[in-house]
Amino acid sequence: MKKAATQAAAARRMVKLKTGAKPAGPDERYDANIDHILRAAASVFAEKSFGLASVRDIAAHARISFPRIYYYLRNKEELLYLISRRAFEELLKRAEEAARATPDAATRLRKFIAGHLEYHMDNLPEMKVLVREADSLTGRYSADITRLKRDYSRLCRRIVDQFAEERGHPLDREGSRIVTSLLFGAMNWFYTWYEPARDYEQRTRIMDEVFGMIAGSIARR
Amino acid sequence: MKKAATQAAAARRMVKLKTGAKPAGPDERYDANIDHILRAAASVFAEKSFGLASVRDIAAHARISFPRIYYYLRNKEELLYLISRRAFEELLKRAEEAARATPDAATRLRKFIAGHLEYHMDNLPEMKVLVREADSLTGRYSADITRLKRDYSRLCRRIVDQFAEERGHPLDREGSRIVTSLLFGAMNWFYTWYEPARDYEQRTRIMDEVFGMIAGSIARR
Repeated sequence: MKKAATQAAAARRMVKLKTGAKPAGPDERYDANIDHILRAAASVFAEKSFGLASVRDIAAHARISFPRIYYYLRNKEELLYLISRRAFEELLKRAEEAARATPDAATRLRKFIAGHLEYHMDNLPEMKVLVREADSLTGRYSADITRLKRDYSRLCRRIVDQFAEERGHPLDREGSRIVTSLLFGAMNWFYTWYEPARDYEQRTRIMDEVFGMIAGSIARR
Repeated sequence: MKKAATQAAAARRMVKLKTGAKPAGPDERYDANIDHILRAAASVFAEKSFGLASVRDIAAHARISFPRIYYYLRNKEELLYLISRRAFEELLKRAEEAARATPDAATRLRKFIAGHLEYHMDNLPEMKVLVREADSLTGRYSADITRLKRDYSRLCRRIVDQFAEERGHPLDREGSRIVTSLLFGAMNWFYTWYEPARDYEQRTRIMDEVFGMIAGSIARR
């Protein structure tokens, strides 16, 4: 009975999270708690892997009691799902802003790269989890994230295509798919080598180098 | 007593593996068994993650009895270590061949890229494990693989530097580090999107595109 009530409460929270509506009053504390728990979960997943991490580890890392954490979530997989969904929603928001940016496709591509890498720099544990645990979700959780990821990747591919056209070297279907995949690779490997103390000063240059790889590869055609 | 004897046997096998000496006669069957077990382990780690996979899963996948598998190895971590060491030894061998290839740095870079990606294409589970479980080894196992990885990455960086010089656009320290890291990213993301049925025909083109990104980025300077 208690479990059912907890699940119903979690479901209500989920709906709130889904619509993205900012709750007012006492619920605000709840939202801060969810942010805090998701951040703690990302750190624990990044360190231990999703498979080996337990909800108990996450509760300890978030300094929240083990029974109380279940007020906010149903199970460990829901945490990975929420981390992934928030990340892709934020990435998509930035990409859509980039896509609308200017009539100039080069600027749109630059903005897309900046949005992706800046998100990376500010959310290293989340990005590590996204990259490493891409196959760890199941069922509807997995389907939902796959859809967001596909939308994100399509938006990027469209920007790359428009940029290539603007440069007078339109890409064919295969070229567009391969260049977009290589671009994501160059960017998503980032968490393995980015050290804020050393690389933060270099961030404009890093974004320039990523843009330069795509621009250079297209100019060679 | 039995455990100690098994460990001693495993240690002898390890030494044999380390020296790379081809044993003759009855031991040849042993070598084939180790290959078979390492391949099965890579598949199981790729599917379940290192953390969640058990030696029992691997024995079942390799169709070898659970007690018997301990004739070949000490524990699960040793399997991950051997998979990683073999992979980096093979990658290093190919990279050294590439580095010796011709006086022409562009050909050396092309050969390096081809060696890395061809290894990838032929060993998708191993590469997935290498990328995702980079932090899962501990102690001496981890130190040993870190050293091989550093050697491999240095060799690549030297080839990139020589190529940039040959093109008349030498890279500074930061540029060389960033371009090499982006190159590894573009290549190591490969296991997430490469589908042999669709992409095998495109493999020359994929290697060309990777080379083109580096060449193009250097030409823009």
